[in-house]
Amino acid sequence: MEKRLVFGHKSPDTDTVCSALVYADLKKKLGEDFEAVRLGTVNEETKFALDYFGVEAPRQVETVSNEVNEVALVDHNEPQQSVDDLKDVRIVEVVDHHRISNFESAEPLYFRVEPVGCTATILRKMYKENGVEIEKSIAGLMLSCIISDTLLLKSPTCTQEDIDTAKELSEIAGVDLDAYGLDMLKAGANTKDTSAADLISLDAKEFPMGDAKVEIAQVNVVDTEEVLARKEELKDAMTSKIDDKGLNLFVLAITDILKNDSTVLALGKNTEKVEEAFNTTLQDDVAVLEGVVSRKKQIVPPLTNAFKG
Amino acid sequence: MEKRLVFGHKSPDTDTVCSALVYADLKKKLGEDFEAVRLGTVNEETKFALDYFGVEAPRQVETVSNEVNEVALVDHNEPQQSVDDLKDVRIVEVVDHHRISNFESAEPLYFRVEPVGCTATILRKMYKENGVEIEKSIAGLMLSCIISDTLLLKSPTCTQEDIDTAKELSEIAGVDLDAYGLDMLKAGANTKDTSAADLISLDAKEFPMGDAKVEIAQVNVVDTEEVLARKEELKDAMTSKIDDKGLNLFVLAITDILKNDSTVLALGKNTEKVEEAFNTTLQDDVAVLEGVVSRKKQIVPPLTNAFKG
Ligand SMILES: [Mn+2]
Ligand SMILES: [Mn+2]
Repeated sequence: MEKRLVFGHKSPDTDTVCSALVYADLKKKLGEDFEAVRLGTVNEETKFALDYFGVEAPRQVETVSNEVNEVALVDHNEPQQSVDDLKDVRIVEVVDHHRISNFESAEPLYFRVEPVGCTATILRKMYKENGVEIEKSIAGLMLSCIISDTLLLKSPTCTQEDIDTAKELSEIAGVDLDAYGLDMLKAGANTKDTSAADLISLDAKEFPMGDAKVEIAQVNVVDTEEVLARKEELKDAMTSKIDDKGLNLFVLAITDILKNDSTVLALGKNTEKVEEAFNTTLQDDVAVLEGVVSRKKQIVPPLTNAFKG
Repeated sequence: MEKRLVFGHKSPDTDTVCSALVYADLKKKLGEDFEAVRLGTVNEETKFALDYFGVEAPRQVETVSNEVNEVALVDHNEPQQSVDDLKDVRIVEVVDHHRISNFESAEPLYFRVEPVGCTATILRKMYKENGVEIEKSIAGLMLSCIISDTLLLKSPTCTQEDIDTAKELSEIAGVDLDAYGLDMLKAGANTKDTSAADLISLDAKEFPMGDAKVEIAQVNVVDTEEVLARKEELKDAMTSKIDDKGLNLFVLAITDILKNDSTVLALGKNTEKVEEAFNTTLQDDVAVLEGVVSRKKQIVPPLTNAFKG
């Protein structure tokens, strides 16, 4: 069988990197030849998970059509979040848990999107459906995906299915869910050694809202003050991004993974939309949003509405 | 739980009508309230299947947002093939086996498309995955879907999974697969009592090809000559459709379900594309395409290429 590549989105997170590895493992056991690759740097949280379970990171690629004719996508389906030469290859499978947008196929394919907290939760079912046993390290990677995407089962995107799957996987992986989860999230929450430019871009996504271009970056921390101490440096980095991309608004969400709150730093000509969306007042460009941890469910929708109104 | 509707595409075929009924049955057994509805007339083939297994046809609707807030789609995903007010409701689930095109969702949903011959083949797996037993009449409806979409397992769209599923379902339904299948297809192949206008529109789909608008209608028969005897009448109906819709080409494929060939009648200013695509010559607007039974796999792709070339 012809070799294929499988990968997640640009600015890869733990779900994207590990789900690609897991998908390739499942397919290998079903007799298909898939190699997992990635479209960007492995972050500190993902590194921790890979090291813990003794798995090597996938190799990084810039393009895929120079290597293969066919690919599978995990953890994304929108072409602008994918590899630049996606249009030059055939997509044979998609496994994802995001909204569906701008996806077009010339032919029928296997396309599976479910409204759960994490891609790995769907992959875990695919092992079951195909009667394939899960190795310890693979269970560990899937567990890491769920912990990362649901902030240790605390995000509003987390479903009962994610919770049940995480418990089951922690047993196969032989780790204590809470202890391992907190260690992994903390590894990704180390902001000291990360430049301001990286902090605002490692997990950044751009969203069109009405006629406005809005960029929302998110960084997980265990010490919000440590990041806010570098506010001027962060503002400089954000301002040059605003100029470069012609943004109307740049929001950096600093999410405290222990308290489950987010502190937002907002810059640009439309910062009043942040005040409107969250019924708050920015003080020196900053506001605390209590109980907010999910960009997808708690930041994007109210902000989109504010730009509509 | 709030009531929802489930339906297939306009110009409903057996897979669309029966898969909606089957989907509603599965959901009911899982404690969810779905009603199956349809967007057009029940054809003769579908009527045969419903009567045989003693199931009532779903009720016909023109719009859905006047009744419910949420819907599920089976056997289609392209909005232009769906209910007119689709944009006014939330789509919570899609189960389909066609290419993905123009589908957009604001939020994640359950979206399952697989490259198999028939929607019911996927639904059959969903019963298994959810541990739900299949009643005799429901098995009969699913079997009818597979027979219809794969022309009794002979279409090139038919996969091993469709074949295995059909065999298993015929046992649950207590029918002989070949005998029942031929009877059902023949019921749909009775063209005598159907007007020319209906023959060219009951199973018609429009495709943009390059800058051209191409309509391809298909009719299943056991006696091609019976249809060709009404050629002038059919040409009149096709010509007025070409004028109405500004078509570049109208192809009527008369598919012999016993011989597994199609005879095409082609009209419009671009009939040379038919000759090019199938390397044939039209004689009095007619050509026989040997071994061609699938519009999706054997007619649309070569014709699309001819319009590109
Ligand atoms: Mn994810
Ligand atoms: Mn179908």
